[in-house]
Amino acid sequence: MNLKNIIRTIPDFPVKGIQFRDITPILKDPSALIYSIDSMKNLVSNLDFDIIVGPESRGFIFGVPLAVITKKGFVPARKEGKLPAKTIKTKYNLEYGENIIEIHEDSIKKGQKILIVDDLLATGGTCKAICEIVKNAGANVIGSVFFIELLGLNGKEELKKYCDVFSLVTY
Amino acid sequence: MNLKNIIRTIPDFPVKGIQFRDITPILKDPSALIYSIDSMKNLVSNLDFDIIVGPESRGFIFGVPLAVITKKGFVPARKEGKLPAKTIKTKYNLEYGENIIEIHEDSIKKGQKILIVDDLLATGGTCKAICEIVKNAGANVIGSVFFIELLGLNGKEELKKYCDVFSLVTY
Repeated sequence: MNLKNIIRTIPDFPVKGIQFRDITPILKDPSALIYSIDSMKNLVSNLDFDIIVGPESRGFIFGVPLAVITKKGFVPARKEGKLPAKTIKTKYNLEYGENIIEIHEDSIKKGQKILIVDDLLATGGTCKAICEIVKNAGANVIGSVFFIELLGLNGKEELKKYCDVFSLVTY
Repeated sequence: MNLKNIIRTIPDFPVKGIQFRDITPILKDPSALIYSIDSMKNLVSNLDFDIIVGPESRGFIFGVPLAVITKKGFVPARKEGKLPAKTIKTKYNLEYGENIIEIHEDSIKKGQKILIVDDLLATGGTCKAICEIVKNAGANVIGSVFFIELLGLNGKEELKKYCDVFSLVTY
């Protein structure tokens, strides 16, 4: 299945000059959705991981079904203030300004092997922030898998310093 | 499996007096996660629906895996400004202030039968807003299924005017 024929490119969103890769046509097509989740599973089939972490909110879209079909648990990484119990957090830079991302302190055990799942690898900033949090929790990110990777932003090169990096569709 | 033994109650979150039902211990436990998705599937096994709509962001957590295992498509309902193509939107009231929720205009076809999936049924405001949007798109919400229902807020009574209502765990 050629997923690029289904992904829709929207010019100038969210700002002028950006070619936004819209995954919603994949999600509404049951065959494309199942094919995508199965293919992401196959990309990481050689990785030995204990639990999946996915960042809010599009990381939930691919991360939870991947957790279900690989029979692993899922840990949400959320924006500051949304998780109700004690958290570990970190700041990271966006193109303009900065963001804080956090996970529940008790969601990861020392020594666990983590797989990060997200929809898009651009500069890798969110993923690097999660790697830091996981390290502070005494565990290790051993891999990351993305539905789409934007080449030319060097996100993969940056992330490779932290973990293995896989992506299903590249632009 | 008694899911209430795994769901964690956090007092006074997000504000004093609220008993927050924290689903993250369910998500990180593979057996509980798979059991939850399977049980939600069983609750709606008699419903004939074409597509699942789930609101941002915790509706993604249960909605996408439910779409995958029922072999249906998934349509995200998002906060204003996050979907890149043309949308249909509606305003709805929160306890303080109001919110806008929207779906892509071309995500639903006329006459389609919609199932709404979300983590929590409280007053039913988000779900009623989605029912309105779907009606404006010429389709019908035929059912809604929630991981948790808070009894005593009359959300179910309100929603039953629009569609069948199912929930897995009640408080």
